[in-house]
Amino acid sequence: MAFTDEVLDWVRASGIRQGLLTLHIRHTSASLLIQENADPEVRDDMERFMSRLVPDGDGIFRHTAEGADDMPSHVRSALTCTTLSIPVVEGAPALGTWQGIYVYEHRRGAQRRRVICHLLGE
Amino acid sequence: MAFTDEVLDWVRASGIRQGLLTLHIRHTSASLLIQENADPEVRDDMERFMSRLVPDGDGIFRHTAEGADDMPSHVRSALTCTTLSIPVVEGAPALGTWQGIYVYEHRRGAQRRRVICHLLGE
Amino acid sequence: MAFTDEVLDWVRASGIRQGLLTLHIRHTSASLLIQENADPEVRDDMERFMSRLVPDGDGIFRHTAEGADDMPSHVRSALTCTTLSIPVVEGAPALGTWQGIYVYEHRRGAQRRRVICHLLGE
Repeated sequence: MAFTDEVLDWVRASGIRQGLLTLHIRHTSASLLIQENADPEVRDDMERFMSRLVPDGDGIFRHTAEGADDMPSHVRSALTCTTLSIPVVEGAPALGTWQGIYVYEHRRGAQRRRVICHLLGE
Repeated sequence: MAFTDEVLDWVRASGIRQGLLTLHIRHTSASLLIQENADPEVRDDMERFMSRLVPDGDGIFRHTAEGADDMPSHVRSALTCTTLSIPVVEGAPALGTWQGIYVYEHRRGAQRRRVICHLLGE
Repeated sequence: MAFTDEVLDWVRASGIRQGLLTLHIRHTSASLLIQENADPEVRDDMERFMSRLVPDGDGIFRHTAEGADDMPSHVRSALTCTTLSIPVVEGAPALGTWQGIYVYEHRRGAQRRRVICHLLGE
């Protein structure tokens, strides 16, 4: 799920013009991802790839307390990112034209996720 | 190997209450990982997955000067993280309940590893 | 492509002795990578591995507007890093002896890439 606009709004509201934005997701079964923000097929393709690379119910996994998607979600989390740091230039994160910021959910069911946003600068 | 407690102690000893913690591992055959901190089977499953994904002795690798686990350790390092940035809130890194901080060793033999810890704040 | 020397020169020119360096690549089809800086075979092996893991023209991908390497480049970007944070100690990023900083290009054709470098410290 993209939350680029929420991040842009929050940085703008802070009044900070130059600095450093850090995002940290407080979970081990969801990630932060900077990805292509235009074509929704990119997310579908990404999901298809990750589902093939780390399949739910893979027989090598023993940590299955929360279901077939439990351990795969931890592996996907390790293969992507838990923290991101983005310079802030002229009041906005210095994202490229095609970059959006996403929470990448790895569990199948609906989850409530928390991301800590930290801003240094002036 | 988890070193969450060492990081927590170091941040606490600094007296800094709000800020930004950055960790950097000075190696290309070991990683930093934020992962599930409760069930040791998660680490075993992760290791089984990574050993299958990037097998020691894979015939496509030519950089084998230090052995069959040499190049796989570089690939695993690239697929995980060398640096992590975690906001500090009320004197502690803002980790989620289930998050621990690990040095993820990719070589088979015992290695001495160095992590640089950097703290900004007040 | 390594750009370690450019980063070292830029940090040195700033006069900052202790601080935090953050790098952010403004693209979703190229990554930042800290990797082994000595043997060029490491890069060749890495490329061979990534080409096998995320093959161009993979039939599961539908986002192919820019060619067979379009979606694979987004996936490789997600599996590596878009941002890096490296502590600065005594006027230089605290890289290990064998660590270099790379732009890891995932597209087949020549691309112009932009990396934002941000430095906090004194």
